[in-house]
Amino acid sequence: MPPADRLRDHAGQGATTVAAHRARRRLRADQARQLADLLRHQLLAGGFPNGTLPHETTLATEYRATRNTVRQALDLLRAEGLVERLPGVGTVVVAEKYPHGLDHLRGLAETLHEHGRVTNEVRTMGPAPAPAPVAERLRVPAGDEVLYIERLRRLNGLPLSLDLTYIPLDIGTALLGADLENTDVFRLLETITGQRLGHAEITLEAVNADTHSAAVLEAPRGAAVLMLERLTHLADGRPVDLEFIRFRGDRITMSGLLHRSL
Amino acid sequence: MPPADRLRDHAGQGATTVAAHRARRRLRADQARQLADLLRHQLLAGGFPNGTLPHETTLATEYRATRNTVRQALDLLRAEGLVERLPGVGTVVVAEKYPHGLDHLRGLAETLHEHGRVTNEVRTMGPAPAPAPVAERLRVPAGDEVLYIERLRRLNGLPLSLDLTYIPLDIGTALLGADLENTDVFRLLETITGQRLGHAEITLEAVNADTHSAAVLEAPRGAAVLMLERLTHLADGRPVDLEFIRFRGDRITMSGLLHRSL
Repeated sequence: MPPADRLRDHAGQGATTVAAHRARRRLRADQARQLADLLRHQLLAGGFPNGTLPHETTLATEYRATRNTVRQALDLLRAEGLVERLPGVGTVVVAEKYPHGLDHLRGLAETLHEHGRVTNEVRTMGPAPAPAPVAERLRVPAGDEVLYIERLRRLNGLPLSLDLTYIPLDIGTALLGADLENTDVFRLLETITGQRLGHAEITLEAVNADTHSAAVLEAPRGAAVLMLERLTHLADGRPVDLEFIRFRGDRITMSGLLHRSL
Repeated sequence: MPPADRLRDHAGQGATTVAAHRARRRLRADQARQLADLLRHQLLAGGFPNGTLPHETTLATEYRATRNTVRQALDLLRAEGLVERLPGVGTVVVAEKYPHGLDHLRGLAETLHEHGRVTNEVRTMGPAPAPAPVAERLRVPAGDEVLYIERLRRLNGLPLSLDLTYIPLDIGTALLGADLENTDVFRLLETITGQRLGHAEITLEAVNADTHSAAVLEAPRGAAVLMLERLTHLADGRPVDLEFIRFRGDRITMSGLLHRSL
């Protein structure tokens, strides 16, 4: 074989080896993700009663996976802040992830009352001229003042969400003296108007937190945030509450029921 | 004043200046976030018809904000991949964010048919022994084989989601020869079983993509992912489809309607 060919052949073999190695690595990463998804569900559903995951070898047997795959799956869950490895104890659940219903329109304290106490730090509150898109959605004349509120919401002291709220001033004025630190705006709106809330249009997105929002939420820079935009109407149909809510992705799950046809 | 006091006094003034500077910076960051949220809604709702945002000075006037705040708000939207600055043109919308309904149970191609063509790259497909939590949820004996499918789903060629799917093998076998590249699993399940789908339990979370998932989705490392876990049942109540779906956060919004009471 001429040297050039031998060289080419050798390079070809090298490429095959690299490709095979890449394929194995890809396969293991796929299997780790697959296992991590199953474990994530179990740990969020409280499926590990004493808060400790089975030993790696037990997991490997149960899930017919290699120990390397198990280790990689646990690494993924650790990166998400769901588990931690404690020397001498094993892998323990450290997630503080709370369920938020998608089936009913509820305030945060109403939703999470089983999980602890919701407190609100009012960062900003006061009348402000409504920007055009806010005025339009709240059906007030453009430039009219609306009540603007910015709150950092905590569950048992841990930051959960950063909420930006716009409310028409005729209703909002009564909120100025209310106990916003300890009461959901939803409940206050119903008390003020003497009406039940009706429905809300919502939009959910996953975004990376900007530096400042991350700092306020005490989350790492670029942390995934579940962003909820919600326009809430009174029972009579009047829009009364426009909110932009950034939930810490590692602290909240939204769950609900979908039907094929209604 | 003794030198030590003067020094302390000077340090005190310095601290005040730093505090005031920090407060101003915090205020501007808060105002930028507030403005960014309003602009985000508008641009996702198609509120800038020719795809170009008004000039910074116009935005500053419209939103009664300083130009610095406007610039910072546009920076936030740029970091989210929603807008870009083109020299000589201004700030243009580059978002490819598609709406996914939360009100009805629909497959991806059904949901997005107005927006383009959904194609699926089947990365893995075949029978595999069901891990215990999968068997339990699909109500098959533990260890029985289920059909496992992994698909990268694209809209008009752009990666949209990475879907991991488990299906009981009695139904799944018929899927092995089906056109999964171009058809929703939902539609195929209805054809195979001769039954409509009924309901699905869903959970939504925002997570940072792990390195490997990010690479598959062609998204930046750590990109925010909207994670949907969904257990779908046939009209007769039998669970037939367990999915773990990672949507690129920058390409999808979920929207729906909530009611105060049903």
